[in-house]
Amino acid sequence: MNPNDPSLRSWLPVPEGSDFPIQNIPFGLGEHPDQYPAAFTRIGDHAINLFELFSAGLFKGVTKEEHVFEGIDCLNHFVCEGPAVVRGVRQRLSELLRHDNPLLRDNEALKAQAVFPIGQVHMNVPMNIGDYTDFYSSRQHAYNVGSMFRDPANALLPNWLHMPVGYHGRASSIVPSGTAIRRPSGQFKPAPDTAPLFGPTRQLDFELEVAFFTYHGKQLGQRISTAEADEYIFGLSLFNDWSARDIQAWEYVPLGPFLGKNFASSISPWVVTLDALEPFRVPGPVQDPAVLPYLQYTGYQHYDIKLEVAIRTTGGSETVICRSNFRHQYWNMAQQLAHHTVNGCNINAGDLMASGTISGEAPDSFGSMLELAWKGTKPLKLSDGSERKFIEDGDTVIMRGYAEKDDLRIGLGEVRGTVLPALPF
Amino acid sequence: MNPNDPSLRSWLPVPEGSDFPIQNIPFGLGEHPDQYPAAFTRIGDHAINLFELFSAGLFKGVTKEEHVFEGIDCLNHFVCEGPAVVRGVRQRLSELLRHDNPLLRDNEALKAQAVFPIGQVHMNVPMNIGDYTDFYSSRQHAYNVGSMFRDPANALLPNWLHMPVGYHGRASSIVPSGTAIRRPSGQFKPAPDTAPLFGPTRQLDFELEVAFFTYHGKQLGQRISTAEADEYIFGLSLFNDWSARDIQAWEYVPLGPFLGKNFASSISPWVVTLDALEPFRVPGPVQDPAVLPYLQYTGYQHYDIKLEVAIRTTGGSETVICRSNFRHQYWNMAQQLAHHTVNGCNINAGDLMASGTISGEAPDSFGSMLELAWKGTKPLKLSDGSERKFIEDGDTVIMRGYAEKDDLRIGLGEVRGTVLPALPF
Repeated sequence: MNPNDPSLRSWLPVPEGSDFPIQNIPFGLGEHPDQYPAAFTRIGDHAINLFELFSAGLFKGVTKEEHVFEGIDCLNHFVCEGPAVVRGVRQRLSELLRHDNPLLRDNEALKAQAVFPIGQVHMNVPMNIGDYTDFYSSRQHAYNVGSMFRDPANALLPNWLHMPVGYHGRASSIVPSGTAIRRPSGQFKPAPDTAPLFGPTRQLDFELEVAFFTYHGKQLGQRISTAEADEYIFGLSLFNDWSARDIQAWEYVPLGPFLGKNFASSISPWVVTLDALEPFRVPGPVQDPAVLPYLQYTGYQHYDIKLEVAIRTTGGSETVICRSNFRHQYWNMAQQLAHHTVNGCNINAGDLMASGTISGEAPDSFGSMLELAWKGTKPLKLSDGSERKFIEDGDTVIMRGYAEKDDLRIGLGEVRGTVLPALPF
Repeated sequence: MNPNDPSLRSWLPVPEGSDFPIQNIPFGLGEHPDQYPAAFTRIGDHAINLFELFSAGLFKGVTKEEHVFEGIDCLNHFVCEGPAVVRGVRQRLSELLRHDNPLLRDNEALKAQAVFPIGQVHMNVPMNIGDYTDFYSSRQHAYNVGSMFRDPANALLPNWLHMPVGYHGRASSIVPSGTAIRRPSGQFKPAPDTAPLFGPTRQLDFELEVAFFTYHGKQLGQRISTAEADEYIFGLSLFNDWSARDIQAWEYVPLGPFLGKNFASSISPWVVTLDALEPFRVPGPVQDPAVLPYLQYTGYQHYDIKLEVAIRTTGGSETVICRSNFRHQYWNMAQQLAHHTVNGCNINAGDLMASGTISGEAPDSFGSMLELAWKGTKPLKLSDGSERKFIEDGDTVIMRGYAEKDDLRIGLGEVRGTVLPALPF
């Protein structure tokens, strides 16, 4: 039985337009108030504790390791078991949850221990993230930034078309969806000729990104090729790479973004496997100039995932300000992973690699306020009549993503965060 | 009893010139072939298993937590207990190891389980490093690089004198002293007008650095001031930030170093506590222009630690090529930590923050081959008659560091790594 079969139905209800039909079966790290942290999956608006299913013997023949389902590092242990075990667990869950399987459906005692309305389970950052890397792989985003700060005629830097440019980010400050974000303070220069000031950022921004979690890689010194890459990618989440543009602008030469980024990043709680997204592969752009052999790839390595960003103001009014798509990537995940490891850099289960801001060609598909309001020169009108150049205190930024084809919708869910005023100094 | 008292002697022998007298008492993560990984300390040329001492009841009244002494994350658990417990353990070890204390000295059965010649214990990376940050805090190093690649008259970039510039590095590829380093391959441009090539780096370099491990910090959104910083710094190790200059030069604009650095970094196995280095505090340079209030500090926040780099060639000949000092830092650790957290970025026990290349003013105190051989224009003569512009296959790079004053020598030990040829593609 193929868990992606669009005709499958679950005995759990799946509301119209849900991101989580039985064909999805994502993984997350949840905590019910009466239980230890555990691996969960989700169907519709229900979260299912996988440790409880394991304890009832429902994963017999798939894995014997209970620590892959319980404890704050359980998803790391799970992913360390490798793609065959993860596929086996997803397959077993697909069987257990289909409408005509009575095993769990009719076991009221086990359901009371394992199946909860989603609102009863607190979802954490899915994995203990060892290293986090942020790429810069949307051509339109790189072009927009280059046009704004340098020269539209030479907007792309010389290396950009030759490699998926990336940098290391901060793992400690990645927080789960729903965590409030404190406006950061730091150094910036209000004008080129003034001395640097210290204070709350005046240019708080979001970046619309999709991030992937990795399986355990090869040993230090070995490479992962583009052909091997899929077997090292566990799944995808939505990622808001909060940015303080004024702090970033003053600090980033020559070593890259630091305090302008590392105060917080927000991640959606469900990791949607690459397997679940298989039906949504699409071709990528022609790459010209031709890339070096280690970056060449075959097949479809891009994914058609619709993305949107909304701002909800303090009064409760929500405005969608960006509609983009994960397919707007010049460099795909296989290329990113091959590049990251071509020098022998090792990856571990639970490393996170984010796409960089995903901007399409249309101005309303740009993935950051910096671009949408074009450096503050074109303020955005929100539905409550207010205007935004950047993000204000009290604003909630919400990102959503889903793929859809032939009546099958597989979504990443959403990531949201509300901005709190800066701390007094 | 003050564990830094220079008159203390141990019942374990301490060879002349050792970095590890009883006044040091560093911490490391070791593994004896017959035992589990455990926390160790070192006196002279002996390593001492702290879990065995704990199991014998010798840490009663200091800590009850056995997981702070055994297991691959034990030093993280230990450091999570905070500075009072770490100080208590160092104090207890000082008492147990002094010449006139028979408790361990005369317990042959326990010594057989706990005290080993250093060569019998394999030392690992001391902690499970969550996040690794590399600073760029030597003025001479920043000046040298700026002079070489830009303009001697404007060598320092505009932000350099206003903040301790830093960036995030890769934690997964930090390896313990003694691990062989594979020459990385990557993209680089042999000349400005050529297309990028792929191949083994032609400009493999080291960077002489000192790195500090942190205690658990405050929650996300809170700051650590310069006045509080010492209470968040566990101790220091030597750090070789291996660098591929040609790969770095082509990739680093605008997001900073990535594959030119993340193929490997080497760390010395012993963490020497800030407490043990207390006698070696010295004043730092006058900072002009004045720094912003959050970067101001009082007292002596620099440390007089002599540093050297040697190259041992395949034939076995060793040449010291650099003599520097940790005091050659414009920005000290308290300023680095205050800057890193001023935007609310959180730190965890076991985070690592490295100094950046430590270059003094004298040309033989420059902390990298790039500077010592001035971009390949002044090849270094080694004692076997060969010349070096960069590091060659088979070369072993050895870094050593120690502080000395009034007959008391406290050392960081050494970090070494031998370069292996690149893998064929």
